[in-house]
Amino acid sequence: MHPRGGEIGAEASERPDVEKARSLLASGEPAELRSYLEAFHPSDLADLIESLDKGERASIISIMPDELASETLAEMEESAHPEDLLIADPRRVTELVRELSDDDAADIIGDLPVDKQREVLAQLPREEAGELRELLSYDEESAGGVMTTEVVAVPEGATVIEAVEEIKRQVAEGEDFYSVFVVDEGGKLRGTVSLQDLIIQPPEKPIREVTEPAFAVVPARMDQEDVARLMSRYNLVAVPVVDPVGRLIGRVTFDDVMDIIEAESTEDILRLAGGSAEEHLGGTAADAIKRRLPWLYVNMLTISIAALVVYVYQPTIQRAVVLVVFMPVIAALGGSAGTQALAVTVRRLALSPERKGAWNVVLKEVRVGLVNGAAVGLVAGLVGFFLDGGGFALGIVVMAALWLNLIVAGFAGAFVPVLLESLGADPAIASSVFVTAFTDLAGFFFLLALGSWLLNL
Amino acid sequence: MHPRGGEIGAEASERPDVEKARSLLASGEPAELRSYLEAFHPSDLADLIESLDKGERASIISIMPDELASETLAEMEESAHPEDLLIADPRRVTELVRELSDDDAADIIGDLPVDKQREVLAQLPREEAGELRELLSYDEESAGGVMTTEVVAVPEGATVIEAVEEIKRQVAEGEDFYSVFVVDEGGKLRGTVSLQDLIIQPPEKPIREVTEPAFAVVPARMDQEDVARLMSRYNLVAVPVVDPVGRLIGRVTFDDVMDIIEAESTEDILRLAGGSAEEHLGGTAADAIKRRLPWLYVNMLTISIAALVVYVYQPTIQRAVVLVVFMPVIAALGGSAGTQALAVTVRRLALSPERKGAWNVVLKEVRVGLVNGAAVGLVAGLVGFFLDGGGFALGIVVMAALWLNLIVAGFAGAFVPVLLESLGADPAIASSVFVTAFTDLAGFFFLLALGSWLLNL
Repeated sequence: MHPRGGEIGAEASERPDVEKARSLLASGEPAELRSYLEAFHPSDLADLIESLDKGERASIISIMPDELASETLAEMEESAHPEDLLIADPRRVTELVRELSDDDAADIIGDLPVDKQREVLAQLPREEAGELRELLSYDEESAGGVMTTEVVAVPEGATVIEAVEEIKRQVAEGEDFYSVFVVDEGGKLRGTVSLQDLIIQPPEKPIREVTEPAFAVVPARMDQEDVARLMSRYNLVAVPVVDPVGRLIGRVTFDDVMDIIEAESTEDILRLAGGSAEEHLGGTAADAIKRRLPWLYVNMLTISIAALVVYVYQPTIQRAVVLVVFMPVIAALGGSAGTQALAVTVRRLALSPERKGAWNVVLKEVRVGLVNGAAVGLVAGLVGFFLDGGGFALGIVVMAALWLNLIVAGFAGAFVPVLLESLGADPAIASSVFVTAFTDLAGFFFLLALGSWLLNL
Repeated sequence: MHPRGGEIGAEASERPDVEKARSLLASGEPAELRSYLEAFHPSDLADLIESLDKGERASIISIMPDELASETLAEMEESAHPEDLLIADPRRVTELVRELSDDDAADIIGDLPVDKQREVLAQLPREEAGELRELLSYDEESAGGVMTTEVVAVPEGATVIEAVEEIKRQVAEGEDFYSVFVVDEGGKLRGTVSLQDLIIQPPEKPIREVTEPAFAVVPARMDQEDVARLMSRYNLVAVPVVDPVGRLIGRVTFDDVMDIIEAESTEDILRLAGGSAEEHLGGTAADAIKRRLPWLYVNMLTISIAALVVYVYQPTIQRAVVLVVFMPVIAALGGSAGTQALAVTVRRLALSPERKGAWNVVLKEVRVGLVNGAAVGLVAGLVGFFLDGGGFALGIVVMAALWLNLIVAGFAGAFVPVLLESLGADPAIASSVFVTAFTDLAGFFFLLALGSWLLNL
């Protein structure tokens, strides 16, 4: 979870081999496995361990040296942590946690049951435990939850050379930093000073004169997605996090933002696809089954309304079975057009939710449906015309149904997420499950009602 | 497109108002509009201008001062650039481009027709034009296409204090930097030196002794997605870009990576939703119509095979219309399960394509389909049992069809993207359009063939 300069030994190109690790694990030679693993970067080891099964994960982590194990845990998806191992051995957790920066430590401790958290915290030095308790008090998806409290801060009364000395003292612990914050005696944030300026400016210059106002300051409770959007929008390498009275309490850095952007995009994609945003991408089949099944049942419920329409119109179908041939086309194209509108709208809201004119988006999508509906309706209508042996009725019914359906699809695809957003909900939960159920319902109704009406003429 | 420290005047919280800008534009008071716009950050102005229509965009940019106009253009999506304006006035483009860092300049010039590019380049100083020509020679989505050539490099023979002097000379132009590269006399990359070390280490120490090997070095032709993955994986703030013989030619920074991650996620979402990855999120209805219609026609083609199955089984339907009631359920649940599997698989491949065992993913999805298919099949079967007035035939047909369909859905949702990936294609083009057409086809076939068979018993 931490930015790196060039201080790491391993090259980015080498990757550990799963089968090799597995066979070393099976051969019962922990020393050999340990020295094999030590050649790799924790990010790569995290990947390796995530693709093993639960028992293997615990065994590998239990034989890794503390520093490597802790950094690897920090890089792993939390859902892949060997919880049983961690819960069973709070002493080992304490050792691991001591190796980590406080935000990574808090992530690992935060996953433990409350009584185990207490046990671990009790074994840590008082100051460290206090910082971790504070971090644990924030929502995991807020600025406070992703920040580290390890900031480099200099007093506003210092000179450049004094600031440099102060920095030398503070960064002895080896953490990389990209920004230096300036604080007053009460710890309140006064601004930032760039590393360049510290290198370039004359040593005796007062820090006050090279302090710039912080371009963005983030309250600890701000949602991580908003923090990420802010930093990505203004290309910020780090932002200071402050408490309600403006005291500097931490910082969020670009590498957290990369992780957040990736994680939030994954969540949106899984939600839009009608799945659970909590599913772990490399998870087991059992995990996937448990996460997805509820959504399939939801889909059964929503789709049963469309099925009910068909149920009601059975007599019509009996008299004109050919209508059924067009049901897949209506359902597929309505679903497709609805999903297109939905994806564009949800993504637009995700990337710039503060942009005005969201309701214009609904209008735009209806216009798209109007044109594209006519375009595909015409083709389907022609097919209907030929299937009907040159009669006009079927063609007209099919064309009208498809056309209307694509207008409804455009409307639903844009309206539902915009409505959810304006109600403060996540627009991505308007997943394709709901939109396609809606377009199916509308489409089948148009097809069968129009069909029934024309047949009765 | 460039990282910022605290050197920007505007606060992140202020945003320009579209209606205000519009009315100032309409009132014909360019001076007033100009002073209104000058209060904002280029990223916010870019957003404002993107939500205006074509004519307004050109007028606003034409009255903006050069520096602000150029930075705003650099922050805008390229599809929203006022091309007509830029094409009509190469002299103005030259002025704009001179204000920008070379990568942003290359992006703007790259969008012009070749003859206009030449005109602009001819008006620039020889060295600047040469650098831009080099940048323009790279694929827009490669490391060379996103890098800037503005690197801070120090000779490996220098001492710390000499390096600091060298840096002071190089960064006079005001660009932020986060890493200092070390090169030999031939310009070949030798490693990096951290800013911390320059601040902390004794001035007379040789740079060689504080040089670390570059953790990752990127060839100019590397795909931008791979660069982003590398930097995000190892939490790198910047990576050096080298030519085929290892000479340092540029760098890619974290802010480029944030943009790339966002853009690639957007593309994946739009593709998965059966749309075009090239659609501009804030684009007009006309743009959306043009981008999406081809995919709707593709969908018509793929779905027509499912419709053909229904066409063939019309006699069966005639004898048992109630089968049709289950068609929406089969189509929706098969589509939903297929899309769930697809989204998880595509996302997994996008985030760690080098992970081994992709074929295990197919097996996993088949197992998910096996269990979830049985779970939903049972419910649908029960409904069938009641609709059939207590007869077993319908319930068994419905249950078996849904079950089989969800197995097929899991298989198709995982197999198609894994296959595409292993063939070197983008797995996201296995959009829901194809997977749902496939599950519809399979589902209707199972339902109608089984129905026909049981009816004939």
